[in-house]
Amino acid sequence: MFGETIAAVSTPRGKGGVALIRISGDEALACLEKIFQPMYNGGFPERKAVYGKIVMRGEVVDTGLATYFAEGHSYTGEPTAEITCHGGIAVTAAVLEAALWAGARLAEAGEFTRRAFVNGRLTLTEAEAVGRLIDADTESRRKLAASAAGGSLARKTGEIRDSLVGVLAALYAAIDYPDEDIGDEGETTLLPTIEKGAAEVKALLSTYKTGHAVADGVKTVICGAPNSGKSSLYNRLCGAEKAIVTSIAGTTRDTLEETVDAGGITLRLADTAGLREADDEVEKVGIDRARDKMAEAELIIFVCDGSRALTDEEKDLISEIKELEAAKIAVINKKDLGLYDSLIPENVFDKTVYMSAMTGEGAEALTDAIAELWGSEKISLSSDAVIWNARQKASLESSLDLLTAAADALRLGAPADAACTMVESALSSMGELDGRGVCEDIVSQVFARFCVGK
Amino acid sequence: MFGETIAAVSTPRGKGGVALIRISGDEALACLEKIFQPMYNGGFPERKAVYGKIVMRGEVVDTGLATYFAEGHSYTGEPTAEITCHGGIAVTAAVLEAALWAGARLAEAGEFTRRAFVNGRLTLTEAEAVGRLIDADTESRRKLAASAAGGSLARKTGEIRDSLVGVLAALYAAIDYPDEDIGDEGETTLLPTIEKGAAEVKALLSTYKTGHAVADGVKTVICGAPNSGKSSLYNRLCGAEKAIVTSIAGTTRDTLEETVDAGGITLRLADTAGLREADDEVEKVGIDRARDKMAEAELIIFVCDGSRALTDEEKDLISEIKELEAAKIAVINKKDLGLYDSLIPENVFDKTVYMSAMTGEGAEALTDAIAELWGSEKISLSSDAVIWNARQKASLESSLDLLTAAADALRLGAPADAACTMVESALSSMGELDGRGVCEDIVSQVFARFCVGK
Repeated sequence: MFGETIAAVSTPRGKGGVALIRISGDEALACLEKIFQPMYNGGFPERKAVYGKIVMRGEVVDTGLATYFAEGHSYTGEPTAEITCHGGIAVTAAVLEAALWAGARLAEAGEFTRRAFVNGRLTLTEAEAVGRLIDADTESRRKLAASAAGGSLARKTGEIRDSLVGVLAALYAAIDYPDEDIGDEGETTLLPTIEKGAAEVKALLSTYKTGHAVADGVKTVICGAPNSGKSSLYNRLCGAEKAIVTSIAGTTRDTLEETVDAGGITLRLADTAGLREADDEVEKVGIDRARDKMAEAELIIFVCDGSRALTDEEKDLISEIKELEAAKIAVINKKDLGLYDSLIPENVFDKTVYMSAMTGEGAEALTDAIAELWGSEKISLSSDAVIWNARQKASLESSLDLLTAAADALRLGAPADAACTMVESALSSMGELDGRGVCEDIVSQVFARFCVGK
Repeated sequence: MFGETIAAVSTPRGKGGVALIRISGDEALACLEKIFQPMYNGGFPERKAVYGKIVMRGEVVDTGLATYFAEGHSYTGEPTAEITCHGGIAVTAAVLEAALWAGARLAEAGEFTRRAFVNGRLTLTEAEAVGRLIDADTESRRKLAASAAGGSLARKTGEIRDSLVGVLAALYAAIDYPDEDIGDEGETTLLPTIEKGAAEVKALLSTYKTGHAVADGVKTVICGAPNSGKSSLYNRLCGAEKAIVTSIAGTTRDTLEETVDAGGITLRLADTAGLREADDEVEKVGIDRARDKMAEAELIIFVCDGSRALTDEEKDLISEIKELEAAKIAVINKKDLGLYDSLIPENVFDKTVYMSAMTGEGAEALTDAIAELWGSEKISLSSDAVIWNARQKASLESSLDLLTAAADALRLGAPADAACTMVESALSSMGELDGRGVCEDIVSQVFARFCVGK
C-alpha cells in the first residue's frame, strides 16, 4: 500500500523533442491503462518501453512510449509509469491533463523524491544531492552533487555508524547476558572505536569548507584602480566556465552575479554588470561600486598594475581591505609587460599571485591559490564523501561533541554504560544526517526546495 | 547500415527532474556500452529500461536509466539508445559530453526526425506535423498537429493515390498486354476515378483556410473608441486560453503579440502590451495605435459601446475598416447594460455580435462567428485530414489542375494514355506532399525548421 497516485511533467518546462510525464502511486498502472493504448497487444511488461497512443475521452492526445516500473523497482519505490511524449508546451500539458483525468493528482514540488526517501530508496543526504544535481550549473557543483547522489556521503557515514553500532551491540550483549560468556571484546575496543569514529567525523567535518564553497559559492569581489585589468580578469574567470555549460545548455545567466568555477570552487562574482562594460565605463564607476560590495564579500581579489608603483588611492584601498574578514588575494597584473615588482604590503593578503589577465600567463597561480584557500586541491569532488550544508554540519558537530565527551568520560574512568548512552546520542545525531530518525520538520524543509516533477 | 551515430539532449533546455539524451545510428549500442554501466549484469535487452551509472573516463557522471531500441523499432528506425538522467543544466551537458566522447557527434536540428523520414518511419507531412506538435502552444494547434503526426493526412492522400494508381495499373496492363484478355475495366472506370480523385483533392484543399488559420494564426486587431471595452474583450479572449496552457507549462508569452485559441482558430492579437494596461492608459494611445496595425490585419474586431450612439470618430473608423481586405467582426459591447441597438452600418462587417466583454454574456457568439469565418466548425481538428502550409497547398493545387485537365481531355475524346500521363504527373505532385519523390531541397527546408534533439 503506497501513497495517493501523483503525476507531473518531470522534464524541464519549454520546447524540446520529447517530454517525460511521471505517474507514481498505488494506481499508477490503472492510470496508465486508462490513458495509454499500446500499438501491439501485450499490456505493460515491467520496465519495457511500449509504443502506443495517449488517449483521453476517446481522443488521441499524442503518440509515445510508456514504461511501467513495479513496486520496488522504480525511483520512488512505488508502482510508477513513465510516459515519453512529444516535447511541446501544449502537448505536454495535454498528456499531464490526461493523467490527472485518469485519477492522479498533480505532484507537489519534490514529492517523487520525498516518496523515494520515505520508501527507503534514498537517504536524506542523497535526496538533498538530487536537488543539488538538478540545480548544478558548473562542473564542480555537478561533481559534488553526483557523488553524493550516488551515495558517497551516505556510505561514509554508514561505515562510521556501523563500527560504533557494532561495539555497542557487543558491549550491551555482555552486560545484558553476563552468564553467556560473551567476553569483554566490547569493553576493550570501546574507547579505540569511539576515538576512531570521532576522528572520522572530524575529517568529514573538515570537508565542509570546500563543500560549502562549491555548493553555495563564495561571494567574490574583484576590486582595484581603473585600468588595472579588472575586466580582463573577470572575463578570464568567466571564459573558462563558459565552454563547459553555456553553449550546450543554452542557459541565461544572472546579470548581477556571475557564477564561475575556479580551482574547483564556485565563485559568485558580484556586480558583474558594470565590470562587463568597456574599461572607460568602469572607470566612471571606479572603485566606489566595488567598495560597497566588499563588506559582504567572502573573497576579495585585489588587482593592480604591476608595471607601475601603487597609487595613494590603491594604498588606501589596501588599508580598507586589511580590515575585512574575507579571504584576500592580490593579483599583480600585467605580468606580460615584464615590469612587475613585489609592491604589495605584507600581512594583508592570504595569497599574492603574479599573472597577466590579458594573455592568461600565470592564470593557474590564481586558481591554485583559490583551491588552496578552500582546500579543494585535497578533495576529489567526484568520489570523496563531502558535506556541504549547515544541516549536515550541525548534525556532525553535535555527533563529534558527544563522541569526544564519551571518550573523555571513559578515560576518566566512567562506567562503560554511561559512555554508551552518549555514543547512542551521537549515533542519533549522525542519523539525522541520513534521515534516520530525523524529525518531520527537517524532512519537509529539505523537500520544500525541490521543483515539481522530481 | 545506417548513418553516423548522433546524440543530443531531446528534452527541453533548463532545469527539471529528468532529462533524456538520445543516441541514434550504427554505433548507438557501442556508445551506450562505453558510457553506461548497468547496476545488474544482463546488458541491454531490447526496449528494457536498465538502471545504472553513466561514466566517462572512469568518473561517474550520473545515475539513470538506459533503454536500447534495435534497428526498425526506434523513432529513427536506426539502432537507438535513450538515457534518462537527472535534469540539471550541468549534469545534462555532462551526459551529452559523455555520449560525444564515446564516439557520437552532436545531432543537427531536426536530424532524428529527418532520419525517421529517410528510413520510411514517417511521411514528410507526419514529420512536419511532429515539428508543429512541438511548437504547439494552444489546444487547437496541438490537435491539428497530433492528428497529422498520427497520420490522418498521410492516410487520406494515400487513399486518393491508391485508387488512382489502381486504375492506371489496370489500364496499363490492358494496353501493354492486349492478348491477355485483362478486360477494359481500366478504360471504363478511368474518368469516374479521376473525377472522384479530383473531388477529394478539392475537398482536402478546402481545409487549408482552417488549417492555416490554426497553424499560422490569424493576425487580429481589436479596435474601437476609448472605453468601448477593448481591454475587457482582450482579457476575455486571453482568459479562456490561459487556463489550458500557461499555468501548467509555465511559459512566458510574447508581450507584443498574444496567441489565443478562439473558436478552434488561433488568433494572434497584435499590440497587446497597450491593451493590457488600464483603460485610462489605453485612452491616451487611443485608436491611433490600433489603426497602424489594421492595415496588415487578417481579422479586425471592431468594438463599440452598445449603450450609446456611434460617435463621429467611430463612424470614421468604420469607413476606414470598410476599405480593408481583412475579415471584419463588429462587437456591440455592453450587452449587460441592456441598452444596445443595432447601430452598425450594413455591408461593412462579415459578422455582427452582441455580447458583454465584461460579464462574458454572449461571448460564444464571437467564437462562433470566428469559427464560421474560418470553417473550423465543420472540421474535427483531432481526426480529420487537414492541410496547413503553403507547400502542401501548392502540391495539391498542381495535382488538382492536372486531374481536372485529364478529365477534360477524356471528355473531349482524347486517348486514355494521354490522360494517364497527366494523372501520373498529378500523382507525382501529390507524392511531393508525402515526400515520395520530393526533391532534396524541399526536404532540407522542412527539417531546417526543427530544433536540435528531435
